[in-house]
Amino acid sequence: MPRLITLAIFLLPLFLLAATPQNDIRALLAMQEQAWNRADIDTFMTGYLDSPEITFQGGSGITRGYAAVTARYRKNYSNPAKMGRLKFTIDEVRLVTADTAVVLGGFALTRTKEAGGDASGRFSLVLVKTPKGWKIVHDHTS
Amino acid sequence: MPRLITLAIFLLPLFLLAATPQNDIRALLAMQEQAWNRADIDTFMTGYLDSPEITFQGGSGITRGYAAVTARYRKNYSNPAKMGRLKFTIDEVRLVTADTAVVLGGFALTRTKEAGGDASGRFSLVLVKTPKGWKIVHDHTS
Repeated sequence: MPRLITLAIFLLPLFLLAATPQNDIRALLAMQEQAWNRADIDTFMTGYLDSPEITFQGGSGITRGYAAVTARYRKNYSNPAKMGRLKFTIDEVRLVTADTAVVLGGFALTRTKEAGGDASGRFSLVLVKTPKGWKIVHDHTS
Repeated sequence: MPRLITLAIFLLPLFLLAATPQNDIRALLAMQEQAWNRADIDTFMTGYLDSPEITFQGGSGITRGYAAVTARYRKNYSNPAKMGRLKFTIDEVRLVTADTAVVLGGFALTRTKEAGGDASGRFSLVLVKTPKGWKIVHDHTS
């Protein structure tokens, strides 16, 4: 019996990490956070769907298409200092249909004053389930 | 032949108003704009899904559920002067799946100085197709 309990304790983390849509989406965002923090925009961008239709809406309006969204990140965060250290706070991961989800959260960027200083804000993401996993198709950051 | 042309001209608006998801969603937003401009928050709110899960994300964080979203509008826009005159600008209505859509746009509120002055911003809406038509399930306004 103690052995079964020990086994259950060892297996518990596996259940917590079960491949639910919510966990898959949280893993995607954790991947993005880690990629950002090693200044790897290419890998960060794999969180978005590679499509000319995806959109990013920020203070300066709408950016449309994977290439333009990538270029926007490269322009605004042109070196590791400007990228700073990113921390996401995920408030909610919610399925709106079986293959569509919204994520609501906040971001905080820790940066030196020379690199633009700290920044923070709120985001809403829309994700769709694709053969390659969940991908962001719209990002509103404010 | 001239009669056929005349007929075609008369029928043209009907084709333009065909019941596509995009037109249905634009009609929903036009309904919301008109309801707002006669200070009818109840009707305005029928654009949202009546569910405890819907969310509104703004500058002050997340408001969750139809009742709370309604209460937020009633509190922030407590009389017709504070509601002002609303004008939506719809930049994009895009299906992300057959039964999910995102709308990107801007709003402008024309108000007297006493009622808070003019206001404007950007919004992203997530809508789902329901038996009662398309409904907003998430609203990020910034």
